[in-house]
Amino acid sequence: MVMHARETRIREMIEALAAFTASPGKGTTRLTYSAQHRAALDYLVGRMQAAGLSTRIDSVGNLIGRLEGSEPSLPPVLVGSHIDSVPNGGAFDGPAGVVAGIETAFCLQEQGHRPRRSVEVIVMIEEEGARFGGGLLGSRILTGQVDGDALAGMVDGKGVALDEAMSGFGLALENAPDAVIPEGGIHAFLELHIEQGPVLEQTGDAVGVVTSIVALSQLEVTITGTAGHAGTTPMAGRRDALVAAAGVIAELPDLCSKIDPRAVITVGQIEIQPGGANVIPEAATFSVDLRADRAATVAGLKTAVRERLAALEASGFGVTVSELLSVPETPMSEDIRSAMIAAAEDCAFAWRPMPSGAGHDAMVLSRIAPVGLVFVPSRNGVSHTPEEWTDYDQLARGVEVIFRTTRALTA
Amino acid sequence: MVMHARETRIREMIEALAAFTASPGKGTTRLTYSAQHRAALDYLVGRMQAAGLSTRIDSVGNLIGRLEGSEPSLPPVLVGSHIDSVPNGGAFDGPAGVVAGIETAFCLQEQGHRPRRSVEVIVMIEEEGARFGGGLLGSRILTGQVDGDALAGMVDGKGVALDEAMSGFGLALENAPDAVIPEGGIHAFLELHIEQGPVLEQTGDAVGVVTSIVALSQLEVTITGTAGHAGTTPMAGRRDALVAAAGVIAELPDLCSKIDPRAVITVGQIEIQPGGANVIPEAATFSVDLRADRAATVAGLKTAVRERLAALEASGFGVTVSELLSVPETPMSEDIRSAMIAAAEDCAFAWRPMPSGAGHDAMVLSRIAPVGLVFVPSRNGVSHTPEEWTDYDQLARGVEVIFRTTRALTA
Repeated sequence: MVMHARETRIREMIEALAAFTASPGKGTTRLTYSAQHRAALDYLVGRMQAAGLSTRIDSVGNLIGRLEGSEPSLPPVLVGSHIDSVPNGGAFDGPAGVVAGIETAFCLQEQGHRPRRSVEVIVMIEEEGARFGGGLLGSRILTGQVDGDALAGMVDGKGVALDEAMSGFGLALENAPDAVIPEGGIHAFLELHIEQGPVLEQTGDAVGVVTSIVALSQLEVTITGTAGHAGTTPMAGRRDALVAAAGVIAELPDLCSKIDPRAVITVGQIEIQPGGANVIPEAATFSVDLRADRAATVAGLKTAVRERLAALEASGFGVTVSELLSVPETPMSEDIRSAMIAAAEDCAFAWRPMPSGAGHDAMVLSRIAPVGLVFVPSRNGVSHTPEEWTDYDQLARGVEVIFRTTRALTA
Repeated sequence: MVMHARETRIREMIEALAAFTASPGKGTTRLTYSAQHRAALDYLVGRMQAAGLSTRIDSVGNLIGRLEGSEPSLPPVLVGSHIDSVPNGGAFDGPAGVVAGIETAFCLQEQGHRPRRSVEVIVMIEEEGARFGGGLLGSRILTGQVDGDALAGMVDGKGVALDEAMSGFGLALENAPDAVIPEGGIHAFLELHIEQGPVLEQTGDAVGVVTSIVALSQLEVTITGTAGHAGTTPMAGRRDALVAAAGVIAELPDLCSKIDPRAVITVGQIEIQPGGANVIPEAATFSVDLRADRAATVAGLKTAVRERLAALEASGFGVTVSELLSVPETPMSEDIRSAMIAAAEDCAFAWRPMPSGAGHDAMVLSRIAPVGLVFVPSRNGVSHTPEEWTDYDQLARGVEVIFRTTRALTA
């Protein structure tokens, strides 16, 4: 097989980024402000400069490479995605969109094309929330949605404060507001992402042009009971926080399907206290991730979860629920979708309009600019695992759509 | 209130030991081979020497203080308990029995009594299993029940091998067999322990003379499903390891009560992989602690748990079960019980015979010698929590029984 130069470059970048992992042989584990994050940024700075971009790292660690347009005062078109991963995730979720941005710059360079508007390629932090929770932190900071107090209160799972993690990365928390993009500061944001679902593979389409991103909510629930010795406390007198939590978690799939069979609900994290094998759990804390086409459906799911928890509270358990993240459904820009569709059709790529079941940085950036999102196929529909995969020719088709859309929007 | 010298000494020792905790203000967290373990041993060496004992630390970290009898070649009477705790446990589980041993030595010293048989006070490691799992490790090593391969394979929750932890504590794994007590090496083992249950408080008895210790088993279960993105994987196609585990855990109390209403079953630990809030759990690993009056009942409980797990396996999940610990019911020595009862009656202490719902080092040491176990009341029946409490006068009564029984057995 003859590999096009583009596919080779894309592949090299994806593979290089995949090597910056804290879990070699077990997928990509690249947490925000980790040594792997630093190494990946250093590598990407080199690639950006090779593609003719001038680079800077903003006050929270987002990397931006700029190709100055012929009218530098015009707001730029921003293209990119995120660099962090979930624990033991894949090589494409995030990096595919980062590579699409840099490859777009390589293509412009090769064509000797200087756009009218500047192009900025962005590599964002902490989209997954795997280190500091909540997710989409880089784009939320860029859009001014996170205040200093919230940042100062963030702590990772090992008890390291965001402040401390930033200092270790050569950044200062108090400068975080400098990262905010002022109103009108960008003309558009374009993102390529792997689908992370089975649709494109099943339909055989080359790209998905996203119509809207689902509404989502992330809750943190803590159930509190009474600790005691596992051997000497009769079953009848127990208030076991894990048994109570397990009863709720086991029921969530049915609860979800009854409200909307297309909605999804997931508990991805659970921790119990004190955590001895011979101690009755006093507390169980778990995450609840809820998603549906519309915010009203997510609200209905939340109500159902809260009602189930209220029944526990009535039976003597302590229950606290905090909402870490709540985002309504987000429509993508119609103009950008039209430009993406035109690009796909010019290339004779099969495409389809589709919603996104996953939240992406484009969702957050839609607050300050029109945004567009292109999906490429995910083998077996899987993501957030080491098996995550998109063929490089499939990725190259998506990049072509991003490149052509960038040209159109910067003309 | 006039405090007797004995109560004062007991209280000082309990309070001093409670201060060696990794969770100040949140109960006792003293893991084996931790800095808190070291500090507690240093303190106890001082107390033992003050009580006239010569001290040594064996090859795995058990501390032994010896009062040489007038016939030093006779096997000694061993008195003591353990020094490790569960995370955020109490000040009495373990220390009460250690203090009973040392206070017995103080009493012998005060009475100027030199026993015929030697008395050895022992402070054992890792009874709770909070660091290396399984539990009762110190006494199992003393009785030659743990081979070198098993020790070499032990790793704590943070990935630190037992070998490495021992080295850091100035011990060498390869010397572990030196700790084994040879056959006929001890004449008897006496232990005082808090009840960790509500019986003595409810009946108003001063001491419980334990008749037997319940049979117990500890399982580690891993359920494996399929990871995937929380937003893009429809509910219908999921194999969520946590939802499956939760279904089992929620059913365990009913399953247990149906087999034997006096049996108990506890899941005190659970961990899921990969552990991102927006990732469907691929694997859930949890402990199952099973206890009942008789080994046959525990076997019945295990079968019921395995059948429930087999149903999961049939529906497409991976299931592995390993048994970390299995101990049949253990009768206490009738002769020692008689001596303990005589001691209680001489002092006009109300006493009652009772089984123990918790495993104790006496259970393991019964393999190599006759053993006796005395319970003192636990306020509200709670244990393994910071609220664990026994009044010092209650503790002093139990110590008196241990002291008098030691005198009788060493005469």
